[in-house]
Amino acid sequence: MKRLSLIDAGFLLAEKRETPMHVAGLHLFTLPQGANEQTFLHRLADGLRSADSFQSPFGERLKVGRLGLLGPAYWETDDSLDLDYHIRHSALPKPGRYRELFALVSRLHSTLLDRNRPLWEMHLIEGLQNRQFAVYSKFHHAAIDGVRSIHLTQSMYSTNPRERIHYSPLSMEAAERYRAALARQLPGREPLGERELRNVAEVLKERFDSGLHLYGALRRIAGAWLGKEGPLAVPWHDVPRSAINTSVDGARRFVAQSWPFARIRAVGKALDGTFNDAVLAMCSGALRLYLQSMGELPRESLKAMVPISLRREGDLDSSNAVGATSTDLATNIRDPIKRFKAIQASMKAGKELFREMSPGEAQLLMELLQLPSLLLMPLGLTSRFPPYSTVISNVPGPRQQLYWNGARLEGIYPASIVFDGFALNLTLVTCGDKVDFGITACRRTLPQVQRLIDHMEAALVELEEATGLSQPKGKKRPRKKTTAGRKKAATGSRKATPAKKKKAKAAKKG
Amino acid sequence: MKRLSLIDAGFLLAEKRETPMHVAGLHLFTLPQGANEQTFLHRLADGLRSADSFQSPFGERLKVGRLGLLGPAYWETDDSLDLDYHIRHSALPKPGRYRELFALVSRLHSTLLDRNRPLWEMHLIEGLQNRQFAVYSKFHHAAIDGVRSIHLTQSMYSTNPRERIHYSPLSMEAAERYRAALARQLPGREPLGERELRNVAEVLKERFDSGLHLYGALRRIAGAWLGKEGPLAVPWHDVPRSAINTSVDGARRFVAQSWPFARIRAVGKALDGTFNDAVLAMCSGALRLYLQSMGELPRESLKAMVPISLRREGDLDSSNAVGATSTDLATNIRDPIKRFKAIQASMKAGKELFREMSPGEAQLLMELLQLPSLLLMPLGLTSRFPPYSTVISNVPGPRQQLYWNGARLEGIYPASIVFDGFALNLTLVTCGDKVDFGITACRRTLPQVQRLIDHMEAALVELEEATGLSQPKGKKRPRKKTTAGRKKAATGSRKATPAKKKKAKAAKKG
Repeated sequence: MKRLSLIDAGFLLAEKRETPMHVAGLHLFTLPQGANEQTFLHRLADGLRSADSFQSPFGERLKVGRLGLLGPAYWETDDSLDLDYHIRHSALPKPGRYRELFALVSRLHSTLLDRNRPLWEMHLIEGLQNRQFAVYSKFHHAAIDGVRSIHLTQSMYSTNPRERIHYSPLSMEAAERYRAALARQLPGREPLGERELRNVAEVLKERFDSGLHLYGALRRIAGAWLGKEGPLAVPWHDVPRSAINTSVDGARRFVAQSWPFARIRAVGKALDGTFNDAVLAMCSGALRLYLQSMGELPRESLKAMVPISLRREGDLDSSNAVGATSTDLATNIRDPIKRFKAIQASMKAGKELFREMSPGEAQLLMELLQLPSLLLMPLGLTSRFPPYSTVISNVPGPRQQLYWNGARLEGIYPASIVFDGFALNLTLVTCGDKVDFGITACRRTLPQVQRLIDHMEAALVELEEATGLSQPKGKKRPRKKTTAGRKKAATGSRKATPAKKKKAKAAKKG
Repeated sequence: MKRLSLIDAGFLLAEKRETPMHVAGLHLFTLPQGANEQTFLHRLADGLRSADSFQSPFGERLKVGRLGLLGPAYWETDDSLDLDYHIRHSALPKPGRYRELFALVSRLHSTLLDRNRPLWEMHLIEGLQNRQFAVYSKFHHAAIDGVRSIHLTQSMYSTNPRERIHYSPLSMEAAERYRAALARQLPGREPLGERELRNVAEVLKERFDSGLHLYGALRRIAGAWLGKEGPLAVPWHDVPRSAINTSVDGARRFVAQSWPFARIRAVGKALDGTFNDAVLAMCSGALRLYLQSMGELPRESLKAMVPISLRREGDLDSSNAVGATSTDLATNIRDPIKRFKAIQASMKAGKELFREMSPGEAQLLMELLQLPSLLLMPLGLTSRFPPYSTVISNVPGPRQQLYWNGARLEGIYPASIVFDGFALNLTLVTCGDKVDFGITACRRTLPQVQRLIDHMEAALVELEEATGLSQPKGKKRPRKKTTAGRKKAATGSRKATPAKKKKAKAAKKG
């Protein structure tokens, strides 16, 4: 039995009907040539069901004692696993566009996982156009974070289009093969074994002598609260109220879209920044346009929670090894270049906090910073005191083209968590030569959230034009034609950008 | 604003993730000749969405004060109704048998309704074989009981296969037309108007002088606890432990099947009993076979909660006007005739309690008897002290053949509530010349519940043979061939008995 860390358990404590704490990936595939959809999907399901020992977290359910989640919690093996419950076969109503797919995913993402069973569901979805099919996989955040979910994905699929696996992707065998492959890629490092997760008390004891760095970091955070730390943004400080920051209910709306990795990366390079800076600037510009269109752009800038991975390379076992910085999105700055620079400075200041810390220290700081918001949620206070305006999460996805029994993986669209108090989550996965964005929103608070897709394209074009990467087409409304063309699409009828058919190279993009 | 009765609110108070308190109907239709499924279903959905004022409960959401459900609760008009949320379009994976339909309904029935919105969902389901489609409609039991749901059904559909309605079935207009039609059928009676629901204190005051009947009834119940009231069964008294009586989790399994009304009615007549007595005997026989096959038949008899309608004719507005008797299922009696007689006697004794009471008195008694079990549920005590073994609910359905814009209604299969402590619910709707059974069970506790369908047929055959209505085919296992034939079917691949194609007569069967 593995013990849950305090952060893991926090996601269970914070969960309510209105704020499920699960994360999901919508995987889009193209059927292999000549394959019959019905037969192919039934074989995939049979393959999944053939497991008898399971890689974590598929076979583990939650076990708590008399104190419930206030006492220690563990993952224990579920000996009566009902695979027909977890693996589900769904279909889209005709005509089977992305619109119908997003509607189904919005619904699936709105329901709570059953805490009496291992905390996951997998839905094979047939009936998509263009010989595609989809797999929506849902996990509780107590069991998995973004980086672990990508490890899991890579352990389940193959880089070889001709490979037909004879073991279940859920099985221990899949995990062991993946661990062995990673060990070959990282020679000289021992692949980490199963490791008992520790509670905060043990962590505190172990890191007792590392208090100096931590003390410095906490001083700087206190300074930021007093306005003395320049671009360092911290939770709860100066978070403006906007349409996004209200209490939420249980229904979600999910939309997704892909952009070429190279386009966003080029903007970052042109401004001496990272890919991540460019993503934040693109999202910031989109949020500005979105709030402006509703006449609700606040005078103070929005603040984003930007998760950062604290996972050591090769750690496949920790459920959550993720921290977060609070980043100023500079939505109150009109000029796109100045906005980019402000975001970049804020992101830098946030990372600075962690610069001299060990991963252990960083994780401890994160727990100290994050726990208050997780623990405030059950009290219903985060909607009155939102610690952030939104979440923007960048998850590095697989760099190689993946296949599942010959079906080509075209995209990994993440569906994530909406919190009481910030009703919007923008998560992206870099996948081959594309960036797959998934937007998850509270259905009631942000009913027109699909428009954000248009605004993201417009914000990217604005950055491209400001940096001279492309020529403005008009003055008032740049690239009018393109934007108009995308408009129709964003209501749901558009095809998400498919991955190019040429073999994706394992290019170095990090 | 209408106030919720204590029973209505009790269903909200008793609700947990593991025990959702919604009820549903699975309506099976045949497409009109020549209609294209996709176009037809889209038109139905558009028609539903065209409403701007709603008949109850479609437009009403729950409103509670500071005390939550412990204080007074009301239904208030939801001015921001999001019809796209409530009306959903789904599809079945191929090959689109009843097996796939039941799997989807099992899942849809496992998720909680969103309490921030009116407490209903409607799913149009395409992809069934044989030019059929299905509609799964789900309502919170706080808003609706079985009889009210049939009134609602009748107000939404038409008896004329050629009628194409120009108003939404959800609209106030549909309700008003139905009210007017009922008034024509019941001349001399004023159709009841909207009526403020009263809380128990008011009811108590109003009925203060009717205490005598009530006092007598409570005395008899006390007597039954002491074993002095013959066949009168009361909640909690002598309820044996069986596989059905354990705590439940949130996942459901739903299966359905139809039987000819005439077959069951004939058994009742042959034994000087009612149709309802025959239904109970059929279910009792099936439960006996089911528990025997698992080697778990308890020595004491199972007790069923049998809801009885306390609704005055023409009352379309009360959310819940339903009581319950506790009926001895005599599962410890081997002889089918003796078993029938014991059930009949117990049912008679249960009804006797109410014989001299006015509907108001009966309802008050019911509230006194039912509230303890509803209120015990949040404490998790009903699984340790189950008040009943199972629920068997008989809902009189429409007698006339109904159509929705020309699509013929082939069956109304009810999906109902599983309680903590009794993991099985057998509900039936008499629909034209058929009886449509819906079996709802906790997925974990009763994994092989589809076998009950076979056992119900076997139990009916046993009664038919015992009464001489049919000849036994063999000695050890009567009608072996038929039973074997049905066996394959019960795993899910069987077609539910479709209604006969000839025009169903509005025969008097009550």
